[in-house]
Amino acid sequence: MSLIKIDPSLDLVLEREIDVPVELVWTAWTTPHHLKEWFVPKPWTITSCEIDLRPGGAFRTTMRSPEGQEFPNDGCFLEIVEHRRLVFTDTLLPGFRPSAKPFFTAALLLEPAGLGTKYTAIAIHGSEAGRKTHEEMGFHGGWGTVADQMVAYIKAGKVAN
Amino acid sequence: MSLIKIDPSLDLVLEREIDVPVELVWTAWTTPHHLKEWFVPKPWTITSCEIDLRPGGAFRTTMRSPEGQEFPNDGCFLEIVEHRRLVFTDTLLPGFRPSAKPFFTAALLLEPAGLGTKYTAIAIHGSEAGRKTHEEMGFHGGWGTVADQMVAYIKAGKVAN
Repeated sequence: MSLIKIDPSLDLVLEREIDVPVELVWTAWTTPHHLKEWFVPKPWTITSCEIDLRPGGAFRTTMRSPEGQEFPNDGCFLEIVEHRRLVFTDTLLPGFRPSAKPFFTAALLLEPAGLGTKYTAIAIHGSEAGRKTHEEMGFHGGWGTVADQMVAYIKAGKVAN
Repeated sequence: MSLIKIDPSLDLVLEREIDVPVELVWTAWTTPHHLKEWFVPKPWTITSCEIDLRPGGAFRTTMRSPEGQEFPNDGCFLEIVEHRRLVFTDTLLPGFRPSAKPFFTAALLLEPAGLGTKYTAIAIHGSEAGRKTHEEMGFHGGWGTVADQMVAYIKAGKVAN
């Protein structure tokens, strides 16, 4: 039973059905060389990705703008339920150390739906201001675009089952 | 394998050997009606305690000063390894929601040592300023006193095995 509870005043939710199986979505999300191919809207790129798939384990990516500026993201995993639920946060660094720039917790919820997947991505904030900032940063467009990129990547046969 | 790594510039550590068994220490720490009896230096008291022993589950206490002022603490558990390791934080509320006042993560590490327990409590901070503030709040005296209170409570036969 997940303890994740959506609060519409604080959280942002992207929910859609996608026609790729849950196991491949899981692999695309949890394997660095796959995640690097789709996790940021193009033409941005991911230049590095570290995934230590344990509670408290590192989840680090570096995003690179088309102009060449790099933006590191540092956080850790909180909850891992294979093929169903992946929770991570930037409020804690690896080893559960409090971070200097706490912003949000993310929960990815997956459910089989026919041959595809019900795909729910939730950004959990501590304040309405946090939610609003994230909305203005383009949460819906950004997370929607990368979901599209992930589906295209999986359909191109790049992720082995 | 724990991902907890002590950084002496950021963290505070209380380590001692206590002559009560690891199973009773675990019960004293994870049962609200036991924890209320020893978790704050007397004559302060704990007026309420909620423990939902799951990752993301609530760990809430309210401390009451001798003058009657109440201080709520709200956080969640991160890692639970029965009789060995309990990790919790105030940087995330139940359901992993970022908190408004992130301060520290605590790790309690227990190891059997003869008939007793090697008892290690670690306060993990994100900055040297956080460590210093916690030191000045009286981390060592406070956590040491409550460890003494817990041992006395267990030796008085209050915690069933």
